[in-house]
Amino acid sequence: MDQSTFQQWDAQVTQWIDEARENILAHFDEPLSIEEKSGRRDLVTQVDKENEQRLVAHIRQADPDAQILGEEGLGDHVTETDGRLWILDPLDGTMNFIKQRDDFAIMMSLYIDGIGQAAWLYDVMGDRLFHGAKGIGVWLNDRLMAPPANLPLSEGLASLSGPLVRHDVDHMQAIGAASLGMRIIGSAGIAFTKVLRGQQVCYISYLRPWDFATGKILAEELGLVVTTVDGQTPSVLSYSVVVVATKQAQQDIIAMQA
Amino acid sequence: MDQSTFQQWDAQVTQWIDEARENILAHFDEPLSIEEKSGRRDLVTQVDKENEQRLVAHIRQADPDAQILGEEGLGDHVTETDGRLWILDPLDGTMNFIKQRDDFAIMMSLYIDGIGQAAWLYDVMGDRLFHGAKGIGVWLNDRLMAPPANLPLSEGLASLSGPLVRHDVDHMQAIGAASLGMRIIGSAGIAFTKVLRGQQVCYISYLRPWDFATGKILAEELGLVVTTVDGQTPSVLSYSVVVVATKQAQQDIIAMQA
Repeated sequence: MDQSTFQQWDAQVTQWIDEARENILAHFDEPLSIEEKSGRRDLVTQVDKENEQRLVAHIRQADPDAQILGEEGLGDHVTETDGRLWILDPLDGTMNFIKQRDDFAIMMSLYIDGIGQAAWLYDVMGDRLFHGAKGIGVWLNDRLMAPPANLPLSEGLASLSGPLVRHDVDHMQAIGAASLGMRIIGSAGIAFTKVLRGQQVCYISYLRPWDFATGKILAEELGLVVTTVDGQTPSVLSYSVVVVATKQAQQDIIAMQA
Repeated sequence: MDQSTFQQWDAQVTQWIDEARENILAHFDEPLSIEEKSGRRDLVTQVDKENEQRLVAHIRQADPDAQILGEEGLGDHVTETDGRLWILDPLDGTMNFIKQRDDFAIMMSLYIDGIGQAAWLYDVMGDRLFHGAKGIGVWLNDRLMAPPANLPLSEGLASLSGPLVRHDVDHMQAIGAASLGMRIIGSAGIAFTKVLRGQQVCYISYLRPWDFATGKILAEELGLVVTTVDGQTPSVLSYSVVVVATKQAQQDIIAMQA
């Protein structure tokens, strides 16, 4: 994608995200309609659904030939990544939205033939939009971001997933112990932003496509790596434990799997 | 303490905290001078020390007969709680300050004959001052706070300490599993604010006097409880695992210790 194509998309998508933000804030002081999906910790509200519906409608109009993969299933049933594919999470960190009214995100990105091209990750309450395109750069709001320092695990904080820590999956407790401290945020999008900004050296969680597809494009553009715990490229159509990290921290984490 | 006495202290202390905030922000874009205390995860910067030095000087002038217990040891060697005692943490969450430039707090409170009377807890980057006095109320900036809902552990998020979770001290992993989700923030002050605001139903960590003395006054004034894991009153002069929680969540946590 060339810079002017990105800028055109950026202008449009930023408007869509502003609209989604307005919709979220409009529901802030009223009771939410909440449903369980797979269990009591996997929830969806009418705000998630309304946001996805609107974003899908915008994409259908602006990019009619593209497939759409959304968390709430209002897009397409996507089985291959050929052609144009939008991946979106209309409200990432739903539990945080419900309980904390903080630490949740909106994420969307465009893949072409399986390659991430452009991405938008919006920290709603922090009012921080991370957006950029492959080969062009990443901006935090209007400021071009510099790649974060390539620190080892021992010199940084580590965002981990609560369930992975409790069950000690893939040596998560040892990874926490090797770092300067574990953090658990409860939103993949917000955790990605901490690594993008160099506030944390890694984020590890069991992630679904809409949880990591957007952050992956931004992270790689900033010189970070996004892999499985054994160093493979995660498929944007499947679920896996995903590591986003500095190059050094990722090597430290992979070495601990042996 | 009567309301007008609190208001007089509040006017003064708010100014001191503003000054401490200015000092922190002045160091934001320059390299910090960092020293290890007990180990690589227990750090102090010149900002912690400068802030404590200034706060101690202000208290000495405004309340010359009081004892002062501060994290960096620039106050007094306090062995009993008779009379007037100020307890302060000039920069709580030093690792977050160093690594994230976010999620850190300034805390100070006044105890008289061992009873918490007035407290100031400032979330620096969120610009949220939680302040109040026993029997008078708690304000978030200028807004009087309402007590948070008395939810059980199963209906809320739980802030826990990373080391306690890793070592599964006092059934911390089961507590996380019983809640709607674990969170780890890395600052006692910020974690207290989440429980005060009803965003989380509990916070459990191994805390030193300056970590919990301030939050305890505010929490109790809002109908929350602050105890050890076996339901005892923690001494503000000693170290222990401290639970701050809704009444229901505290009962759930105590029941899990049996």
